[in-house]
Amino acid sequence: MLEQLGVNAKKAAGILTTADTEIKNKALRAIGKALVDNADVIISANNIDIENGKKAGLNAGLIDRLMLDKDRIKGIADGCVQVAQLDDPCGIVLETVERPNGLIIKKVSCPMGVIGIIYEARPNVTADAAALCLKSGNAVILRGGKEAIESNKAIADIMRNAIEAVGLPADAIQLVSDTSRESSTELMRMKDYLDCLIPRGSKNLIKAVVENSTVPVIETGSGNCHVYVDKDADAEMAAEIIFNAKTQRISVCNACESLVIHSDILENALPLIKTRLDEKAVIIKGDDRARAVCPDIEAADEADFAAEYLDYIISVKTVDSLDEAIEHINKNSTGHSESIITNDNERAMVFMNRVDSSSVYHNASTRFTDGGEFGLGAEIGISTQKLHARGPMGLRELTTTKYLIFGNGQVR
Amino acid sequence: MLEQLGVNAKKAAGILTTADTEIKNKALRAIGKALVDNADVIISANNIDIENGKKAGLNAGLIDRLMLDKDRIKGIADGCVQVAQLDDPCGIVLETVERPNGLIIKKVSCPMGVIGIIYEARPNVTADAAALCLKSGNAVILRGGKEAIESNKAIADIMRNAIEAVGLPADAIQLVSDTSRESSTELMRMKDYLDCLIPRGSKNLIKAVVENSTVPVIETGSGNCHVYVDKDADAEMAAEIIFNAKTQRISVCNACESLVIHSDILENALPLIKTRLDEKAVIIKGDDRARAVCPDIEAADEADFAAEYLDYIISVKTVDSLDEAIEHINKNSTGHSESIITNDNERAMVFMNRVDSSSVYHNASTRFTDGGEFGLGAEIGISTQKLHARGPMGLRELTTTKYLIFGNGQVR
Repeated sequence: MLEQLGVNAKKAAGILTTADTEIKNKALRAIGKALVDNADVIISANNIDIENGKKAGLNAGLIDRLMLDKDRIKGIADGCVQVAQLDDPCGIVLETVERPNGLIIKKVSCPMGVIGIIYEARPNVTADAAALCLKSGNAVILRGGKEAIESNKAIADIMRNAIEAVGLPADAIQLVSDTSRESSTELMRMKDYLDCLIPRGSKNLIKAVVENSTVPVIETGSGNCHVYVDKDADAEMAAEIIFNAKTQRISVCNACESLVIHSDILENALPLIKTRLDEKAVIIKGDDRARAVCPDIEAADEADFAAEYLDYIISVKTVDSLDEAIEHINKNSTGHSESIITNDNERAMVFMNRVDSSSVYHNASTRFTDGGEFGLGAEIGISTQKLHARGPMGLRELTTTKYLIFGNGQVR
Repeated sequence: MLEQLGVNAKKAAGILTTADTEIKNKALRAIGKALVDNADVIISANNIDIENGKKAGLNAGLIDRLMLDKDRIKGIADGCVQVAQLDDPCGIVLETVERPNGLIIKKVSCPMGVIGIIYEARPNVTADAAALCLKSGNAVILRGGKEAIESNKAIADIMRNAIEAVGLPADAIQLVSDTSRESSTELMRMKDYLDCLIPRGSKNLIKAVVENSTVPVIETGSGNCHVYVDKDADAEMAAEIIFNAKTQRISVCNACESLVIHSDILENALPLIKTRLDEKAVIIKGDDRARAVCPDIEAADEADFAAEYLDYIISVKTVDSLDEAIEHINKNSTGHSESIITNDNERAMVFMNRVDSSSVYHNASTRFTDGGEFGLGAEIGISTQKLHARGPMGLRELTTTKYLIFGNGQVR
């Protein structure tokens, strides 16, 4: 069923791969303008999704994620225009080598071709992802969730018309209108058409894609992020960072879920940290030693140390050494973001080198793992795998490379 | 069954990730020496494989691939020592950014962790792959074919003893001794232990890994490589390059399988090319227009244009334009290597930019797509996918990156 979308996408990708920066930027600005100009159309479609969502019993949080108003549409449109201002990631000569036989070998960045994005209830992803794929010269096949299908259709149609008007193929952006489980599975098997598949959403969605896809996947992951308070930590700084990493926004993958603390500083630091977390009524679940210092901490079990709460809850594990902290973290972490709080730079480097995560911090909050905060300008997701991209992914991570080899008759 | 290997590998990887260049090199030199010193042990084991192979009816080519003698073992050992001489790909600071909030963000190359290699009958892969994984700081789980199992066990044991003697964990190199289909399938699902899986071997092996693996795979691919002779080609150069690309070594993935030729140059160039290919009795299968020029060319069908012959056979397709050539190649190629022969640099650039393959040549043989020829020093395979690595893969492609972020109390 989706094969025709694959055929169309491959054809569009063939054109996009040689599209110059100016026309891609023109298309992005046209999208931005068209989204604002057609905000009423989007809002009407969105109202249907909201009604259906209420009927289906979606909770208030999901309904809020789904909802689009003029301000939010303006925000989405502005995002597209900002992508136009970013550097083009394609056509960059990354290396040039001249071989003894006279061959000149250039490694050049270029679009991947066709990228699939499977996502859930947030209609803004439709525009965000399409804009990033367009700027990086890729055709995109978008497969959003059924909750947002009417909004997604409206947004995709507006984008397709906008890019066609500036001379790029409408099929550079395609939306799968069928939101059945089958369409999702079919997309995961479209190896002949898709160069890469990026799932964005819940743990279950990502797991399903990783397990079923024959298309190469970039796993954008969940985060059981740790802050380790070393024996040489500044306890005040530790309390401040943990408060921020845990409570500034609880629903995000770079929020802190687990506190690991050295036994030497436990009595001094834990009460300070707890006082700060109490301000937001954070539930603390700790091991026996933590509970001995702060008796109103709840008891933690092994499942707590592995949990990504996404809530006002944090676990506490006491350790007797840096080694034990690293071991505990590498066992329980999802490879997203971890931080060490210490005044000892040498111990910090040991931690940073040995902790096996995409982003490892010294004396800072894990909340900074983000494309914008890292200065990438935009973000398609945060990779927790080790192939291709790790950590926040921007435009560059949506490209691949090819070798161009210049000869004058060389044979081997 | 393999879970214990996974546990051991992860533990070894934790040690290797901080191993310095000197100890890794020492281990590689020790492996080289131990392989030569224990050549008799390897040859005895290899004799068992050869006997079993003959009983199982393996053809002479496969028996030859399987066979190890003192010279070949010396070659394998030298290969390990050469890897010691290559630059360490780990610990390279690829980027440093200072953010307005004072955070210093460094992107640093580092080992992936645990790499799985699934391969077939050639026992040299056991040592080659292990050496490259060791130098790049990765633990490796090797799963070779049943045909070479005794040789592989002998080689792996010698390597394990050698690295242990210099102080690295023996489990940095592990071999799966069970060569049943089940062990291969189990390895493909060991997502909790393996960071990356690289299949090396036949099309069927690679297909099975891509379809069944939940571990991220680097697809090392088959090659239906094209040489396109443009209307402005030097016909003599074209004949020389096609002769080389087709016949210098027929069994390899970068050999030319398909000739695409512009109709304007067909009458002039095809007879020259044919004369050259006749020297090696290459069977030419062409379309009607090619057969009109050289009547003793056999008729080609669509399957010929998609075939990777790995034999003294080549297909010929006549086209009327550069566009048609590019379209034909992108439809039939496996994304490995293609070449354009032309004196027109502008047309060459159009071809190089639009042909969607890992390595695209201007006036040179496709046979150069190789880690050694590209100056990488060693090669773990040639990637035909677009994620992570594309084209010949050396040590660098066995690493990932992580972000190290240095702060002084920053919160968001």
